[in-house]
Amino acid sequence: MTTAERLTALRQLLAERDYDALVIPRADEHLGEYIPLHNERLLWATGFTGSAGMAVVRREGAGIFVDGRYTVQVRQQVPAADFSYHHLLEEPPLQWLLARLQPGARVAVDPRLHNLQWLRQAEAELAAGGLVVCLDTDNLVDRCWQDRPAAQIEPALLLDESHTGESSVSKRTRIGAAVKAQGADGALVFAPDSVSWLLNLRGRDVPCLPVLQSLALLWADGSVDLVVESARMPAGWQQHCGGEVRLHAPAEAEALLGAQAGKRVLADPVTANAWSQRLLEQGGATLVAGTDPALMPKACKNPVEIAGARAAHIRDGAAVIRFLAWLDAEQAAGRLYDEAELADRLLGFRSGGEHFQGPSFDTISAAGSNAAMCHYNHRNGTPARLPPDSAYLVDSGAQYTDGTTDITRTVAIGDPGAEVRRLFTLVLKGHIALDQARFPKGTTGTHLDVLARQYLWREGHDYDHGTGHGVGAFLSVHEGPQRIAKAWAPVPLQPGMIVSNEPGYYRDGAFGIRCENLVVVTEVAGELETPMYGFEALTLVPFDRRLLDLALLDAREQQWLDAYHVRVASAVGPLLSATDRAWLQQACAPLAADS
Amino acid sequence: MTTAERLTALRQLLAERDYDALVIPRADEHLGEYIPLHNERLLWATGFTGSAGMAVVRREGAGIFVDGRYTVQVRQQVPAADFSYHHLLEEPPLQWLLARLQPGARVAVDPRLHNLQWLRQAEAELAAGGLVVCLDTDNLVDRCWQDRPAAQIEPALLLDESHTGESSVSKRTRIGAAVKAQGADGALVFAPDSVSWLLNLRGRDVPCLPVLQSLALLWADGSVDLVVESARMPAGWQQHCGGEVRLHAPAEAEALLGAQAGKRVLADPVTANAWSQRLLEQGGATLVAGTDPALMPKACKNPVEIAGARAAHIRDGAAVIRFLAWLDAEQAAGRLYDEAELADRLLGFRSGGEHFQGPSFDTISAAGSNAAMCHYNHRNGTPARLPPDSAYLVDSGAQYTDGTTDITRTVAIGDPGAEVRRLFTLVLKGHIALDQARFPKGTTGTHLDVLARQYLWREGHDYDHGTGHGVGAFLSVHEGPQRIAKAWAPVPLQPGMIVSNEPGYYRDGAFGIRCENLVVVTEVAGELETPMYGFEALTLVPFDRRLLDLALLDAREQQWLDAYHVRVASAVGPLLSATDRAWLQQACAPLAADS
Repeated sequence: MTTAERLTALRQLLAERDYDALVIPRADEHLGEYIPLHNERLLWATGFTGSAGMAVVRREGAGIFVDGRYTVQVRQQVPAADFSYHHLLEEPPLQWLLARLQPGARVAVDPRLHNLQWLRQAEAELAAGGLVVCLDTDNLVDRCWQDRPAAQIEPALLLDESHTGESSVSKRTRIGAAVKAQGADGALVFAPDSVSWLLNLRGRDVPCLPVLQSLALLWADGSVDLVVESARMPAGWQQHCGGEVRLHAPAEAEALLGAQAGKRVLADPVTANAWSQRLLEQGGATLVAGTDPALMPKACKNPVEIAGARAAHIRDGAAVIRFLAWLDAEQAAGRLYDEAELADRLLGFRSGGEHFQGPSFDTISAAGSNAAMCHYNHRNGTPARLPPDSAYLVDSGAQYTDGTTDITRTVAIGDPGAEVRRLFTLVLKGHIALDQARFPKGTTGTHLDVLARQYLWREGHDYDHGTGHGVGAFLSVHEGPQRIAKAWAPVPLQPGMIVSNEPGYYRDGAFGIRCENLVVVTEVAGELETPMYGFEALTLVPFDRRLLDLALLDAREQQWLDAYHVRVASAVGPLLSATDRAWLQQACAPLAADS
Repeated sequence: MTTAERLTALRQLLAERDYDALVIPRADEHLGEYIPLHNERLLWATGFTGSAGMAVVRREGAGIFVDGRYTVQVRQQVPAADFSYHHLLEEPPLQWLLARLQPGARVAVDPRLHNLQWLRQAEAELAAGGLVVCLDTDNLVDRCWQDRPAAQIEPALLLDESHTGESSVSKRTRIGAAVKAQGADGALVFAPDSVSWLLNLRGRDVPCLPVLQSLALLWADGSVDLVVESARMPAGWQQHCGGEVRLHAPAEAEALLGAQAGKRVLADPVTANAWSQRLLEQGGATLVAGTDPALMPKACKNPVEIAGARAAHIRDGAAVIRFLAWLDAEQAAGRLYDEAELADRLLGFRSGGEHFQGPSFDTISAAGSNAAMCHYNHRNGTPARLPPDSAYLVDSGAQYTDGTTDITRTVAIGDPGAEVRRLFTLVLKGHIALDQARFPKGTTGTHLDVLARQYLWREGHDYDHGTGHGVGAFLSVHEGPQRIAKAWAPVPLQPGMIVSNEPGYYRDGAFGIRCENLVVVTEVAGELETPMYGFEALTLVPFDRRLLDLALLDAREQQWLDAYHVRVASAVGPLLSATDRAWLQQACAPLAADS
């Protein structure tokens, strides 16, 4: 089917159901960042593969709305004959609809695919223009999607307490008590990563994101009503989860949510879908709006999870180091590969590893000027070959049962020149300053963001993305609430939180640089007047000394890099072959050797 | 009258008017930070002189509520027999009332003394407990205050365009147009500093704050209805202000505000009092909630105001330098003065100066361990004499017709010891880092705050106040919306904004340190990839090199201090006598001379 044929089918259904427009978000009923193939409705309707966007199909005409990251890509993937292109924020889809529909027009929305806050705003905004939102869970795309793949249903993985550090019953008991303290009888735990964390289960059916596709009602006594395909629950799950967990098939979810009359249920209007909260309300439950109660406990990793993260990063570091050693040997032999070959090779080095479960996100393998696009994906076109005398940027990560990794290294291919070295050094100075930060309780990522940017700013440069995102424990590589960015992050950084430290620099059409480690927030040891937190780097892979302009690094920074390299060599060296260890030794040699 | 007698009088009036409680905020009808003596109602009722607080008087019992700065002071000033003491934030006055009054109880509130946002919240909060808010502008304190001083009514000062850089008509025309663009017919310009700025007038009747006690309605065409005592308007004001300015006596304000039926009036619910906005509404006007339209234009100083600030700071610097030279000569002669004598002497050095109009706030003159209290006021007890071998902290400022100053210097008295030098140096390093910051458009003070704290944090120290506040142009020494602090400041720093740069350190019972300059936001010159803003220091007074631990200052920091001192000596030196100039020369000698 062509995009035009798909639109024709959708429009026929619009007419049958007496709708004037249909909203198609890039989301499924779990509202996660990664979507299984059979739920890629926006991709089916438009051809667009980006990670954020929305389409609106009218009886005549249709628009696709994406943010600044995807303005080029959307034009390559979505036929201009079928869709007009718009900026998601500057020309929002609902405003676009309001300008085109007459009062009384009916707009179909699937309430499973939107959070409650969005739906409330949409209803108010469209009502102001006389438009009617029609909630329809019999999704129009699904009805037209003839060759829709079946949902992949893999049995969940029972994650052992040697990885989780706390039993599910213990988590549920303390969080149930916290829910009760907020004046609620129970909580809707909607986000699959929250449910997975709470039950010490992991899923295998969404690429990159090891969550169980499910939702739950957690009660004050720690008991749980769990909505999940029973085929996803492996033998022994009851004993593994412990306590009282009542299973409900997805087809029974509506009945379950509608049967909580009189209950006060904590629900997060920003992360839980509108459908579940409306059903609770319609069934007579009272919604207590609040943050997902698993969010903070999940974000602050316990000692076992931190130990797991350290171990996973040593093994992941070994894989990346093997890749970098191989890459250097190949470029010395005059063999320059393309971006896809490099990404595949890197995956190959990881694949054999202990506890490896798959990549944690789509690898960004960007040669030369492609690295200037910070969300570059070589699968969107012909993968480029490494140009001689350039910088290669590779941002990748993996899921291990004991931890999630995410690392970016920028690598010299031949001699990339003085300007690349100058910028790489400024980026690394910011990375070091953030890594070395000490900060009191109450400090948020917004306070620290400037530390990573200050040296670029001094020279009149900046980068247009956040400096750090939270990372889960064998869960989502993008996890809240912690982050390090210019935008205000009200939640303070707390011990056990894992965040990325990834300043960068991007020069259009020329080159791109990023230096990314994961770090964990720790309490600074010793007797201090004001207790301080700091970071411990988890990622253990050398930074490319060939990209440094040593004149720009002060003594403290040089000491930091030398000490980090000593740590990398001693932690990862024992896992390597003699050849790779020799490469690591020279990559980790003290800077004094360079000057 | 004793405090007890005052409470008795208030309670008699409560009974007469059938009220169960009375709220007494530390505010007058202009909601400014500085309050003329005849409006110090909280002081009259309680004896408390702090700059923030609230009292609640019930038929039986009364409470006073202050923040962390004043927990000691309130116990010294307010009799425990008459008032119970409470923390303003931890045990808020309305919650305290709700716990003590029965449903149906009536709480008297003067709507002139509260902003609309506070009143709305108070009404909702008290209503939830069945309490009734009774708005009463026949203020109970005023009725009981027999020896209340008369309001001081001084004629306003017509501030020349050579100081303001823009005529009142020009300001009113462009801001009127901006108000219209926001969909309003006019705006309530409530804050006296906004009215003063808009009309190029300054008042003389509030200590430290040269504002005209007034409010105004600014219309889209630039015409103004101005509510002010006519005795405050000097001859020639009409020609000075230009355009159409209609004068209304304060007694006519109610009629004026009530006569705007059908008008859409922009008003700021956070800075304008409830009384004025309720009158507008009751008279049939529609309130458009928004920020005071003069706030941003007033905050971003024009080139004439910036030139004025530079000139004022050179003269102010000369006065402070004369004081510091005198202090050194006196301590060399073995004469150690008390805090009051020092503050008076400093005022004396300023008083003769060109354009001097008075202090811009109450001088903090803090000897030895008193400096550890960052809001210390020597007038609250017996002024302490400088201890030998200590550090003296003096935070002071002045109003000049061409600018407002605010400077803190910490001065060595004898040898304060290595620990003071270590902390002073860490504080100064933060001051330098903030001064040297470059940052792109969109950066707010919250992003930069960490630069001033990072070196203290590294060693396990911090300070419990903001790093910088906005400053007016011959207006309030505390001016919004810009600030540099941990608390989220959503308004970005913009060229022409003046802010203080004042990190500090305070050790209880031992010593206090603060290094404060005023700086103005400038555009960094030159061709930069991303345009950057930076700061230019306005304050020109040497930092005490005797308090430095040179081993902690890196080469960049030493260069910064030497360059700053060269600037101070060359700008201020020519204004000084030969003796004072000699002192300045040695105070500004290069650091190399010390090592």
